[in-house]
Amino acid sequence: MSPNASLARKLAELNLTLPAAPEPKGAYRPLQVSGKMAYASGHLPIRSDGSLITGRLGEDLDVPAGYDAARWAGLGILATLKKTLGSLDGVRQVVKILGVVNCTPDFTQQPAVVNGCSELFAAVFGPDRGIGARSAIGANTLPLGVPVEVEAIFEIE
Amino acid sequence: MSPNASLARKLAELNLTLPAAPEPKGAYRPLQVSGKMAYASGHLPIRSDGSLITGRLGEDLDVPAGYDAARWAGLGILATLKKTLGSLDGVRQVVKILGVVNCTPDFTQQPAVVNGCSELFAAVFGPDRGIGARSAIGANTLPLGVPVEVEAIFEIE
Amino acid sequence: MSPNASLARKLAELNLTLPAAPEPKGAYRPLQVSGKMAYASGHLPIRSDGSLITGRLGEDLDVPAGYDAARWAGLGILATLKKTLGSLDGVRQVVKILGVVNCTPDFTQQPAVVNGCSELFAAVFGPDRGIGARSAIGANTLPLGVPVEVEAIFEIE
Repeated sequence: MSPNASLARKLAELNLTLPAAPEPKGAYRPLQVSGKMAYASGHLPIRSDGSLITGRLGEDLDVPAGYDAARWAGLGILATLKKTLGSLDGVRQVVKILGVVNCTPDFTQQPAVVNGCSELFAAVFGPDRGIGARSAIGANTLPLGVPVEVEAIFEIE
Repeated sequence: MSPNASLARKLAELNLTLPAAPEPKGAYRPLQVSGKMAYASGHLPIRSDGSLITGRLGEDLDVPAGYDAARWAGLGILATLKKTLGSLDGVRQVVKILGVVNCTPDFTQQPAVVNGCSELFAAVFGPDRGIGARSAIGANTLPLGVPVEVEAIFEIE
Repeated sequence: MSPNASLARKLAELNLTLPAAPEPKGAYRPLQVSGKMAYASGHLPIRSDGSLITGRLGEDLDVPAGYDAARWAGLGILATLKKTLGSLDGVRQVVKILGVVNCTPDFTQQPAVVNGCSELFAAVFGPDRGIGARSAIGANTLPLGVPVEVEAIFEIE
């Protein structure tokens, strides 16, 4: 059994159901493949029921709520990977994540928010393959008023 | 005829004249090539006459003005590609764009602004090769007061 | 002698002592390698004595102080490269830098700040290999209140 053959089972074990893969909000693809690299567009936090999470850290959302939003953005990335590649089994490793947090100027816990996505990827792909490089930064606002947007690069087989 | 041989003609058809390729504003190259990947630095919106577009979305610029600025940033990227690679014909596909929009905290239409660049690339390279992954985010300010900065990754031959 | 064999000597010539490689502030790696590309996570400005530089451009830090902070972030990236790869000698070229500057909305000199990192890399690796593509953007805040965060991509041997 390849190390990836258990990914569908892993999702089930973690009690994770992927949301619908998001539709682009402009002239872009949710995932673009170039050689062995797959670039996931900035994903917004959308719950399984299709509702968009909005709000701003330091204003109307606290760190656990931001963490949860980053996790939903990450689940959206997984859904996009699965839809585009056919399965998550072709993912060799997480290369890099960029998490941008919509927050007030005094908010400085962007890493704790973006962990919601990072820890999801670590759980799904395992720590060896699921933890990559990362940047977490702040922004005064984001598309549609979401609290966090996450883009990612994956190495695929 | 290669699928790229008509790019100069395509620019003419679209009635596009590329601006002068921008000079770096610091210790960097406008385009860096690594293997089959070409990384375009963050480009600012500069018109063909050399004037810089400044302003902030939600304050003194509306979405169509921001779209136009993103288009000029994209034209600058095309000018840089042409200057560095000798021609646009070596571009195999747009891999990813990051568009950063200088805006007020209540502005949430960053994707509509960045479309100005995305739709330019789609028109010039065609939808198959001209549409890649993308992130659009907000920022409270940008270099020299521009409304939008766009960086891009291309796969080249 | 390979062009890289003198990098340790170059650091000594420049009177540079690398700080300790930073520990991750979340579920990520400071450096992730994929093929010939090495992705450095967003690095914060930490001095050799372990103290974190905090502050905001346009508020309590001026451009020279921001430049100095970007240089410390760059030194942290070099420390991470050395720790992870064993030496800086495997770095073939700087591919791209993203510098994010924590600043007030009226601050527009992000490139002058990020030069602190770019000019460090140019000095250490030489202009041919040490200068890559770059984006410099603003942000209303950054993790732990730092004035600048820098991520980088390197081509390695």
